[in-house]
Amino acid sequence: MNRTVKKEDQTLSERILGDTPGSYVDRTVDRAFAHDGTGIQALVALKGFKSQKIADPEKVSIIYDHIAPANNTTTANLQHSLRDFSLREGFTFFDIGEGICHQIMSEGICMPGEIVVGADSHSCTMGALGAFATGVGATDMAGIWATGETWFRVPETIEISLSGELCGFASPKDAALMYIRKLGMDGATYKALEFTGEGAGNIPVYGRLTMSNMAVETGAKTGLFYSDEKTREYLKSFGKVAEIQTPCDCSYEKSVDIDLSDIVPMLAVPHRVDNAVPVTDYSGTKLDQVFLGTCTNGRYEDLLSFAKIVSKNKVQVRTIVVPASKDVLKKAVSTGIISDLIEAGCTVCPPGCGPCLGAHMGVLGEGEVGISTANRNFKNRMGVGAEYYLCSPATAAASAIKGEITSPEEIL
Amino acid sequence: MNRTVKKEDQTLSERILGDTPGSYVDRTVDRAFAHDGTGIQALVALKGFKSQKIADPEKVSIIYDHIAPANNTTTANLQHSLRDFSLREGFTFFDIGEGICHQIMSEGICMPGEIVVGADSHSCTMGALGAFATGVGATDMAGIWATGETWFRVPETIEISLSGELCGFASPKDAALMYIRKLGMDGATYKALEFTGEGAGNIPVYGRLTMSNMAVETGAKTGLFYSDEKTREYLKSFGKVAEIQTPCDCSYEKSVDIDLSDIVPMLAVPHRVDNAVPVTDYSGTKLDQVFLGTCTNGRYEDLLSFAKIVSKNKVQVRTIVVPASKDVLKKAVSTGIISDLIEAGCTVCPPGCGPCLGAHMGVLGEGEVGISTANRNFKNRMGVGAEYYLCSPATAAASAIKGEITSPEEIL
Repeated sequence: MNRTVKKEDQTLSERILGDTPGSYVDRTVDRAFAHDGTGIQALVALKGFKSQKIADPEKVSIIYDHIAPANNTTTANLQHSLRDFSLREGFTFFDIGEGICHQIMSEGICMPGEIVVGADSHSCTMGALGAFATGVGATDMAGIWATGETWFRVPETIEISLSGELCGFASPKDAALMYIRKLGMDGATYKALEFTGEGAGNIPVYGRLTMSNMAVETGAKTGLFYSDEKTREYLKSFGKVAEIQTPCDCSYEKSVDIDLSDIVPMLAVPHRVDNAVPVTDYSGTKLDQVFLGTCTNGRYEDLLSFAKIVSKNKVQVRTIVVPASKDVLKKAVSTGIISDLIEAGCTVCPPGCGPCLGAHMGVLGEGEVGISTANRNFKNRMGVGAEYYLCSPATAAASAIKGEITSPEEIL
Repeated sequence: MNRTVKKEDQTLSERILGDTPGSYVDRTVDRAFAHDGTGIQALVALKGFKSQKIADPEKVSIIYDHIAPANNTTTANLQHSLRDFSLREGFTFFDIGEGICHQIMSEGICMPGEIVVGADSHSCTMGALGAFATGVGATDMAGIWATGETWFRVPETIEISLSGELCGFASPKDAALMYIRKLGMDGATYKALEFTGEGAGNIPVYGRLTMSNMAVETGAKTGLFYSDEKTREYLKSFGKVAEIQTPCDCSYEKSVDIDLSDIVPMLAVPHRVDNAVPVTDYSGTKLDQVFLGTCTNGRYEDLLSFAKIVSKNKVQVRTIVVPASKDVLKKAVSTGIISDLIEAGCTVCPPGCGPCLGAHMGVLGEGEVGISTANRNFKNRMGVGAEYYLCSPATAAASAIKGEITSPEEIL
């Protein structure tokens, strides 16, 4: 199926998929993962197939993150059946409390150059490690379990050309909100984003994960960073040896330039992610809840950034903190961050998605206003009739200690 | 209303209520508390009254523990309205993540000799501090908010006469299961229990709280320990000065003798709390979940007892730990217990009731089997079609590292 394409002309996703934009290709996947929500749907789909035989169980991970621990009998029953199936088939199984699927996949499982599919829209997160990582539907996932492969239309690539360096309280999340504002929520539908330039190299891996995570908020299939020394160092910490990917002089469908040194703390105003403005435009908006966590901003560095502002203070509004994984939690406990957060008045929930999907652990009431480090502020998502602003961990922290939307620049 | 009764003839609850058994008395309450479940119902009842004026707001505490953080929009809306009302009226308000109402009331709020009413059946917990503490319905609670008082039928008292000392892995929870086995689940309906003798004096306050907490499982109104030097020391740690209560030579309706040195690790077998047998009768029963926590056994000493067995091991079954309060959590973080529990594979949830009431954070599926340190194993309570065994923290720990019901004596 592979046509001959000169490697030096290819964008990173073309290189990984091995064909030109617009081509339809069948590819063996390197990793396939699903969570408690979509995994159960995939299992139902699989049961409709002639055979339930799994092609390559060691490539499959099941990670319980969405409603974990179970919130009712129905959830518990569904989780029970998928848990049984996963263990029987030899899938790699992560039970409640281990963390969010994207985070766990990024902790030494997924590698640069791989084709990674996850039954969750934010599977693009692993693009940060130089993988072609994208979300698939649960039925597709069942097909992938059965055959070990799937089809792709090789996407055109939009370059996000980054120069400069983030400074002050500006964070990768603010840069993400900026590129989404520039592209719009349907500005990159079915495209790959590619973060390039010296600015991309300046962003640490935890921040690349944040930026790739939000690629889907522009409609993109994925958002890639080239694996570099930072990636290699990061994966080395999990005992893995990563290849370095060298960018080549390829042509993009479109380029968007962002000077990271221009970025200020940003806010996505309800109910659109691309409705992104400087935080200071909404300073003083009263809050009912602050939420730090998710596959976007639940990593150790996010907790650290939040804790630096919150510790030695008391939060003035109920504040929920959900580490993205057990590894993150362990590190945050051992460095005293969790202790500081609890002392400041935060409620620390077990690793997982927390209230992000509006199914438990801090759903908002009607008319309540929240600020969150998540990736989506869609209407009714985290509580029917509630409003959610999206921001960085530093902005969430400044807002928590004031009880109202506050830019970290306003308090320090 | 008070008749003249010689103080030296009275049981502790008669002394506090100031009348003879069978009398109906009106009494001003010293503390009145409700949680997110019953507080909301009390508020609805109050709104049906002619006036919504609160007699004595500083005596009222509202503590969010049952479904905290909120698990859906309905819960969030109800919590929002009660939160607003509580703050407006000047109630002492404990938001999500502060802990279980009974634990918080026992952390330096409730004092010996007080009349304490809580809109929760386990309000008898505070009997451990020498208070007359009992559960009331939500409508009664609304009346108490409005008038500051309520009526009681002074209960007859059953003595639980304790001799000896707990030894080996036997804990106050095992002693509680033993007295419930002896009395039966309706063996003390509308009675007060009074824990007396040198054995009672030997039990530390955290264990008295466990034993008083379960008084209601015999149908009792409350279960009292006399305030002694241990009580005084305990309350001193919260900056409070407690009176010592001296037992007198009163007559009881009935006495039950228990030699604490005979107690072995006990198990309440589904679906009755009085179906209590030695743990070893069920050794080897496969488990799907272990739950450490609740107003019965979520205290620091409970976590410590559990951690001593679990640390340096890995749990073999999903294990949920819910500290009873933020104070408990803080102490367990600072002493390294939380870190040990996480390393061992436990999922630590924020302070509150956790899955005890089957509303979130670890509901069991149909056919699943759990072991729990809670106080009730009623059919379908923690998951429709599931089975729950009740035990001590040490038994829960031994069972967690084996993945099946195990007495701590069998592994150490």
